[in-house]
Parts: sequence; C-alpha cells; structure tokens
Amino acid sequence: MKINRNFDNLVPNYLFADVARKTAEYAAANPDKKIIRLGIGDVTLPLAPVVVEAMKQGAEELAHKETFKGYPEYEGYDFLREAISGYYKSFGVSVSPDEIFVSDGAKSDCGNIGDIFSQDNTVLVTDPVYPVYVDSNIMAGRKIIYTACNEQNGFSAMPDESVKADIIFLCSPNNPTGAAFTFGQLKAWVDYANKNDAVILYDAAYEAFITEDLPRSIYAIEGARTCAIELCSLSKTAGFTGTRCGYTVIPKELERDGHNLYATWYRRQATKFNGVSYPVQCAAAAVFSEEGQRQIRENIAYYQENARIIASALDELGIYYTGGKNSPYIWLKCPNGMGSWEFFDLLLKEANVVGTPGEGFGENGAGYFRLTSFGDRESTVEAVERIKKLLS
Amino acid sequence: MKINRNFDNLVPNYLFADVARKTAEYAAANPDKKIIRLGIGDVTLPLAPVVVEAMKQGAEELAHKETFKGYPEYEGYDFLREAISGYYKSFGVSVSPDEIFVSDGAKSDCGNIGDIFSQDNTVLVTDPVYPVYVDSNIMAGRKIIYTACNEQNGFSAMPDESVKADIIFLCSPNNPTGAAFTFGQLKAWVDYANKNDAVILYDAAYEAFITEDLPRSIYAIEGARTCAIELCSLSKTAGFTGTRCGYTVIPKELERDGHNLYATWYRRQATKFNGVSYPVQCAAAAVFSEEGQRQIRENIAYYQENARIIASALDELGIYYTGGKNSPYIWLKCPNGMGSWEFFDLLLKEANVVGTPGEGFGENGAGYFRLTSFGDRESTVEAVERIKKLLS
Repeated sequence: MKINRNFDNLVPNYLFADVARKTAEYAAANPDKKIIRLGIGDVTLPLAPVVVEAMKQGAEELAHKETFKGYPEYEGYDFLREAISGYYKSFGVSVSPDEIFVSDGAKSDCGNIGDIFSQDNTVLVTDPVYPVYVDSNIMAGRKIIYTACNEQNGFSAMPDESVKADIIFLCSPNNPTGAAFTFGQLKAWVDYANKNDAVILYDAAYEAFITEDLPRSIYAIEGARTCAIELCSLSKTAGFTGTRCGYTVIPKELERDGHNLYATWYRRQATKFNGVSYPVQCAAAAVFSEEGQRQIRENIAYYQENARIIASALDELGIYYTGGKNSPYIWLKCPNGMGSWEFFDLLLKEANVVGTPGEGFGENGAGYFRLTSFGDRESTVEAVERIKKLLS
Repeated sequence: MKINRNFDNLVPNYLFADVARKTAEYAAANPDKKIIRLGIGDVTLPLAPVVVEAMKQGAEELAHKETFKGYPEYEGYDFLREAISGYYKSFGVSVSPDEIFVSDGAKSDCGNIGDIFSQDNTVLVTDPVYPVYVDSNIMAGRKIIYTACNEQNGFSAMPDESVKADIIFLCSPNNPTGAAFTFGQLKAWVDYANKNDAVILYDAAYEAFITEDLPRSIYAIEGARTCAIELCSLSKTAGFTGTRCGYTVIPKELERDGHNLYATWYRRQATKFNGVSYPVQCAAAAVFSEEGQRQIRENIAYYQENARIIASALDELGIYYTGGKNSPYIWLKCPNGMGSWEFFDLLLKEANVVGTPGEGFGENGAGYFRLTSFGDRESTVEAVERIKKLLS
C-alpha cells in the first residue's frame, strides 16, 4: 500500500501556532496585561435572527413524516440556488440557478475542484497567498508558480504574458492583503485566461465587504463565463463559519480540453458528495431574503467600521496599507523597516496587541503585517489607541 | 488546461434512471394502478424528536454572541467524538475519541480518503458493489480488481491469497446484498490485509441493523487496528440522509509506507475541509444519548419489521435471498431463472411493485433483485401480498 508521496512535499506552516505560543508565553509572564487580539480570522457576531429561525424551521420539517427530507440534490435545493441567483442579480450579475452548486463551504470546493483537472497543469498563485490554494495542489502533485504582490502593484498582481499558467487562483478582496481588483485589472486576467486556454478559480469569499465601485463577481467582467469558476461562501458574508455553507458557479458554456466543466464537476460531486444539510440550506436561503440582507448588512457594517477605525489610525501614522475599505483585512507595512516577527514582538510587548506576521503568507509578506476587523468595537478602538501611542 | 482524463473511463450507470423511466412509462399508461416502490434507498421516517430539539438548540446558540460558534475543529467537536466513542463502547468496541473524524457523511469520506493514497495502488472491490467505491477510484486512475459475490459464498466473498490488493473496500451489512460478515469471515480479511500490507476501507453504514451475533465494527476483530479504516454514517442509523453527518475512524497505530494514516488524513482534512455544521453536530450527539438511542431504535425496528415481512414471504415462496435479517436490504434470486430486468418488468406489470435489478450493481448481480425495507408498513405488506399472489 503506497501513500500519496506528494504529501511529503507539503511544507509545515507554523504561523498561527507560533502566534498562539508567543502570545500565551507573554500572557503567562504578564498576567496583569490585557491582550487584544486583532489577528482573528473568524467572525464573532452571532447569526442573523431570520437565519436562525429558518434553520429551526428546517429542523422542524425533518421532525414530521409529511415534510421530512432525505438525500438532497447534489447541487443544492432549487429554492437556495434561485435565491443565490437573485443575489447575483441584485448587483447586476447574471448567474443562472443551474450553474450554481451549493457546498459546505468554499474551502471544500476550492480543494476538491482539483479532482477534475489533470495533474499535468501549471498552477499560478499570488504571493502572499491563502495556503489552501498551494497545499491542495501540492497534494495533487501539480507544478505551482508564484506571481509577486507588492507595494509596486498595490498587492494586486497583473498577468505576465511571458508566463504560461493553466489554472489561476485569484482572491478578491484578497486574504490576507485586503486588496481588491478593479474592473480593468480583472479584465486583464480574464483576457489572459481566455487567450491562454487557462481556467481562473476566483475566490469571492469577501465580496460582501466591497463598498466602492469594484467587481463583486468575476462574471461582472466580459469574457469571464468562458474562463472562470467562482467560489463563494457565507462564512464572512453572514457569519456562517460554524454553520457551513458556500457555493460554486460554473457557467454552462465553460469548456476545456473537450470537456464541459459543469458536467465534469457534477460527476465528481455525484460520486464523492451527498449535498448540504437541509436546515443549513434553509438558513442560507434566509440570508438572501430581504430581511436577511438587512440583518446581515448590520453585521458587515460593524466589521467595516472596525476596519475603518484601524485604517484611519494608519492614515494618521502615515503607514502604508492595503485593504480596510473593501475588506475585513488590513495589510500594513511594518514601520521603520521592521521585519514581520520583529513588529509582532513589538506590538505584543509594548501595546499588548496581537496580529499576524505577513511572512507566514509567503515571501512577499516579509515586512508586512495583517490586522483584522472581526474583533469587537471596544477592543478594536483600544487596540488602535495603543498602536497610535506606540508608533507616533 | 488539461482535464483529468480518468473521468473518460467512468462508465455511465443508468440503473436508477432506467428504473424511474420504465416506472413512469408504466404509470402513465396505467393511471388506475397503484404502484408500490420497494426500490427506495432513502429513509422515510422523520428524525427522532430529541435529535430535532438538539439541532434547534444548536441553532439558538448561534443566535447569541456569548454562545456563538465559528469554525469547528476539522475532526469534529469533542462532545460528539466522545459520544461516538461511547456508542462503540456500548457494543464492546474500543475506539478513542481522538481516532474519530466527524464528516458530512460516509460518501464524502469514502471518496476523499483516496487523496492520501498513491495512484499506484490496486483496489479490490466486491461484485456486486456500491458504485462509489469504483467510480471514485476510476477518477483517481487506480487499477480496480473485482472479487465475486455469489450464491456459492452467500454473497460474502473471502480473500484469495493468490490475489494482491493494496486497498480493499468491504461493506457489511452489504449494500446491495444485505449479506453481513461473520466474525470468522471478517477475521480472514483482516489477516489478509495485515499479511499483505493492505488497508481495508470498511463501510459500516448499516451496522445498526445487525440483530444477530455479527461484528458491528471491524474493530471487533483482532488485528483490525493495524489495517482498517472504518467509515460510518448516521444516514440509515438515525435518518440523517438529509441532515448529513457521518464519521471515520483511523486507529492511531495504523501506519503504511512510513506514514501514520491518522496524521495524513488530518493533513488532508485541514487543507480541504472546514468541519461539520455546529447544529448538525449537536443533532448527531443527541442520537447517541440514552433517549436518542431509544427513539432511533423505534425507527430501525420499523424498517426491520418491514424487512422481516419481505423475507418471510420469500421463505414461503422458497426463493433464495440474502439480507433481511441484519440489513434493510433484501437481495433475492429472480425466480425461474429470470434475468434482473425480466423480473423487474414482471413485478412492475403484474404486481405493480418496483424494485432494483441486481445487474445494475455488477456482473454478479445478473439474475438478482434488490428490495428495500424503507417504505411504509401498509405498502410493504400490500406489495408482499401481491408478490406472493404472483409467484405462488
């Protein structure tokens, strides 16, 4: 019995473990200090009331023979796919319900979608990068190439015509940098993909945080339907990190290598997946109701205000950053040429604030640092005051 | 961009589509006939009240900041893994909570577990077979070999020392044949796997239907902890087909090819999975409570009585079958040497009863037929009366 040897090529990433250890050590040595965590990548506000009510109603239906639900459709219930299609329409994007696959979260689809692609493809990711794109392709034995995001390109890398990539992972608004593509930037990637017969896997998990006139879906770009798969999630949009629901869009006309990608993915899901829990699909559909949108918008606005508070402080301090406006993440340049971990130690010890060293997300993250807006208001305000006092 | 060409090797299986089409055609041509479906592979009884209540409670916790839950642990909440461990203990099997991975269903794990194995392994499956074992390994490009289940071996195939297999899929009680391994039979497989450095993937999805003195887990067999991964599900045990929860056990001492399989699967899940919905885990834990066990046992007893009614009729008619006693499935030999589809047509037209032709599950299913006990009592009784009238 042979193990998949590609697992041996995975590089252990101790980023969050090291952050936790250093924080715990400092806390133990300084029990009187109040440490504020702005490194948190998980939501903290509760689900919207209308969402919880829908989940309970869904559960109640399972309690009675007349309304009981067995195996769901692999691609999700019609009512939810209709609701998601309507959501796209609300910001001017046309996605048909029969191009949508409901999933237990974008991470699952992001990893599993690789099943439909040959091992013999070159995968392009940005640096810094969300580690799942890299690790899932290392497991599959694919060649991975990196394109640099940095201050010069505002952490939004553009395609390089001299580079040949088959599968391209893009995330906008980006985790960890918070940078969001403009229409023009994203059009350049779509054109590159169509010209090079590549497929873009577009992670739109943070689209709900966009406030400016920027694309909330890759299908807002002409030509995207013949080159792009979009992965999205309710995790950050509606606080579903513990509830688990996402969706993937594959336009019906997306073909590669003689295969229709929708049909190929359907075959994969029919074999290795049995659909999403009915009460969870009910909860997800409630997110897209009028009342649901109003309620989740309150939570998003709360996080957005946290982000604005952090960003304003950096503006005052004259520190370069991306994100904050269209993203729950703020990606800042460590002041005075400090390294990521050097700045981490300084913030922890002198301001008792915890963030995430950028180099954990890739080489180009060295000298950068990620703060998030998922904390509570009072703590965020206090953390910002401490940072301002320390750095001004 | 190259597609995974292994998908081209998948053989379309039109079994259930053909059954549905033929049934619909007959129904349309004979609107006065009352057709009874005994081909159904999905549960029909509602969730147990204590389970629904737990799911609602879990949802309510997500409605409040103090009790809100974000990302779950990849392997599932402690409270659920403790409950599953306790369930194993209730029938005398020792499985530690830290050897259990909670999933969204056995089908997902059954397909995804292949990620940790090299393409260069030979996979052994039985014939007839649950198609997921075959299709997921065709997608991965593995060589598949078949071992015949037939009347001679009571549809419980035994290992052949002259055959070299690396990965072995076993399902007991079996879908579709209902046959369940004895302790001695399963010991032979465990010994074969340990001797040949193979891994058994043991699908125990129907263990709760066992009534006789037969193994309910492969870990009831000495030596299984060094060769077997067990996949289980609440789908049939507790009616979770629409609720979605299962679990996979990988003993800590299971090593192959220099790798610990628990650690390798953990790495896979951490990269491509984000855990199971919190309210669903609450519902699953309630299944294993004292009241939960009492309530789900009522549903299982209902299906078991249906199975007994079908089996008794076959006994009366002198028709050979497997299952019925320790399984919701009854796998019968078509009378008078009829073919599977010939018998399907006869039953549909002369008794207005729908079942599933055995040849849809593999070559050795030719001349066999599957009935299930998931219908309601009244219909099951009526179907059996019609079958008796037709065949006696």
